[in-house]
Amino acid sequence: MGESLGIGLLGLGVVGRGVLDALQGNALVYESRCGQRLEVKAAAVRNVAARSELSAAGLTISDDPLAISSHNDVDLVVELMGGESPAAECIEAALSTGKSVVTANKEVMAKRGPVLLALAEARGAELRYEGSVGGGIPIIGALQRDLQANDVSSVRAIINGTTNYMITAMSRDGMSYEAALAEAQRLGYAESDPTNDVDGIDAAYKLAILASLAFHSQVGPDDVHCEGIRSLEARDFVHARDLGYAIRMLATARQTALGLDLRVHPTLVPMTDPMAGVEGVLNAVSVSGDLIGSVVLEGPGAGAGATSSAVVADILEVAGRLASGQAPRRLRPMDDSPKVAPLSDIWVRTYLRLEVPDRAGVLAELGAVFAAEGVSIASVLQTPHPERSQSADLIVTTHGCSDGALQRVLDGLQRSDSMIELGVRLRIEDGCDND
Amino acid sequence: MGESLGIGLLGLGVVGRGVLDALQGNALVYESRCGQRLEVKAAAVRNVAARSELSAAGLTISDDPLAISSHNDVDLVVELMGGESPAAECIEAALSTGKSVVTANKEVMAKRGPVLLALAEARGAELRYEGSVGGGIPIIGALQRDLQANDVSSVRAIINGTTNYMITAMSRDGMSYEAALAEAQRLGYAESDPTNDVDGIDAAYKLAILASLAFHSQVGPDDVHCEGIRSLEARDFVHARDLGYAIRMLATARQTALGLDLRVHPTLVPMTDPMAGVEGVLNAVSVSGDLIGSVVLEGPGAGAGATSSAVVADILEVAGRLASGQAPRRLRPMDDSPKVAPLSDIWVRTYLRLEVPDRAGVLAELGAVFAAEGVSIASVLQTPHPERSQSADLIVTTHGCSDGALQRVLDGLQRSDSMIELGVRLRIEDGCDND
Repeated sequence: MGESLGIGLLGLGVVGRGVLDALQGNALVYESRCGQRLEVKAAAVRNVAARSELSAAGLTISDDPLAISSHNDVDLVVELMGGESPAAECIEAALSTGKSVVTANKEVMAKRGPVLLALAEARGAELRYEGSVGGGIPIIGALQRDLQANDVSSVRAIINGTTNYMITAMSRDGMSYEAALAEAQRLGYAESDPTNDVDGIDAAYKLAILASLAFHSQVGPDDVHCEGIRSLEARDFVHARDLGYAIRMLATARQTALGLDLRVHPTLVPMTDPMAGVEGVLNAVSVSGDLIGSVVLEGPGAGAGATSSAVVADILEVAGRLASGQAPRRLRPMDDSPKVAPLSDIWVRTYLRLEVPDRAGVLAELGAVFAAEGVSIASVLQTPHPERSQSADLIVTTHGCSDGALQRVLDGLQRSDSMIELGVRLRIEDGCDND
Repeated sequence: MGESLGIGLLGLGVVGRGVLDALQGNALVYESRCGQRLEVKAAAVRNVAARSELSAAGLTISDDPLAISSHNDVDLVVELMGGESPAAECIEAALSTGKSVVTANKEVMAKRGPVLLALAEARGAELRYEGSVGGGIPIIGALQRDLQANDVSSVRAIINGTTNYMITAMSRDGMSYEAALAEAQRLGYAESDPTNDVDGIDAAYKLAILASLAFHSQVGPDDVHCEGIRSLEARDFVHARDLGYAIRMLATARQTALGLDLRVHPTLVPMTDPMAGVEGVLNAVSVSGDLIGSVVLEGPGAGAGATSSAVVADILEVAGRLASGQAPRRLRPMDDSPKVAPLSDIWVRTYLRLEVPDRAGVLAELGAVFAAEGVSIASVLQTPHPERSQSADLIVTTHGCSDGALQRVLDGLQRSDSMIELGVRLRIEDGCDND
């Protein structure tokens, strides 16, 4: 106690700046909380010249994050650059020399988490990553510690603020996909290249992290079936509402008899589902376990303040532990090759919007395609196509069937003259496995 | 590692039985998770003879909890008896000899928490209490660890399942208070003497615990202003809904310029407030802080499973720490005499249901009482009294004023001939401090 902990910040973007401001603004409070003085000694940035005011204040500023990760004055590396490289290499370099690391990097933790966590343990260091999923929502800590007595059966989450913001705009204000994206970009909720968000890749990284923790299994993003929101139209939200559902970009991880069911895709959920109430850039994670039943944690999933809350808490935990002279807690054993359920065997209900020719016989022909695969139709709505007068929109929901059977139906529809185009295919989650 | 941790269970009621079942049913998984075998060595119960099957299984069964707390084979005491005594004495006895303690006892933690936590620290032991507030909701852990980087400005919570169940029944089904209580008792959600729940005492214990953590200050239940739900009628929910509000039994702790504002009472909240969506026996805690914004944690607030989830997680944390040979983390410094804002100075909006005589001049006379204290009326509704034909119900909401001014209005109304009886007084929380 009375010692100081030297911190190296990799990245001074929105979150990095938020963390630096918090550490400098609350220095005395934090020292009192963790038992040592926290000093940011060095920072890695892209443009050194643009940060001259920080160099003047005594900070070592460099454009070489690897050098910062191995810097003598740095005891704890805080990685906030994002992206896989060079972040993963920097984390590895720091851990290899026994320096602990705090990161908010979902891509690195999703793709290389298990290896890096094992390296940390081998070197007596710690790798903490609360900020990598759900911003400031305390979900990593809850899964690691507070819910550890449970056999977790599932995790359901809205964990991408970009798509939830866009979906809310389309749902509440009837915006088109393009208008919702433009609005999200205008407000800084979406990147100029929004691919990682709208195609669900960001959510798949985060789900892999959550599933690994929840099921003590090394789950990677390639294990997650991932579909984006590009095909959504404003009228899908209207039809869903008429059927009693909201549409949300849901990330779901479940234990099933066939293995782990890991999926990210837009989903119809009942209006009464807690996820239906999560709007805008909010994130929410619902964990179900044998003792707890279900808990839901909801809050801001991104942003300087929210992510700083998580990152600085992790810093304080490491600092407090080091001040007490404690070794890190040993990791829970993990299953390193979990069985992942084949998507084709998973039981699903489906919402389809098809563009069909507005002529006699279409319903009979399409109905036959469904019947050929044994897929039973639950509801049908035909309305004029909003743009093409010789087409109609056909909105179909099915009873439960295997995802493989539904895929074969879609293949049959593509071959049929009775479908012009598949508008969108969404899965419906009633909370029941079978219908 | 490979050692065993001897556990002494104080109390084998609903929660104690749940914890015992979990420990025995999941023994191998838990050993793998924390690095040692967890063995329940002894249990204290009221009626030893009724537990003969446990004695036969090798457990030491006793009706002397103090003896179990000091038992040689017991390394960790799990206190699940509830109530202040002898639980507090047992916890003290265990900590005094360096045994760590896990408890779910809100009354002990509210009234004696700071002293017991200090004793634990002095003896190198640990006192954990996640199960004391909100059942399995991971709120204690979140406030202690994941949210520790924040300056917490407020905690708002629905943390008593009994009253929330009753309120939901009155709100959704138009049940009277008496019918809702009878239903709650029938389902086991309320005790035969429901005082601790319906008068808000249980919630005040829990709020004191949460406020102490949130504000690093020793807050006790006597610092919490507490009003119960006995005066609620089904029609209050109808009137509130007409005004755009739901009614919830809210526990609120806020930092203000005047000191800590700590209150438990039925409150009108906007229908759009997250708390308005919390129904039945669910609990929810919302924490606001300068970095995080707001997070909400929602889940089952009571019951064997939910509380066991918290208690066993605490057991696993202690066991893991002991298996690693680590000392407990030192406690954060606390303000031992925080300034509590005088209730009379707190700014509030108010909902009143008054029984008034159905005659000329009443409105003018009552209006004068409000005006004399400078309290401005926001809305008035007069309807026939449901039971007494010569009376009317007068539903009044006020603009913001000090709680003291409102109290003087109530005193004036009591002295006036124009009010027969004060039916109920509820505070309205719009999320704004002033109106």
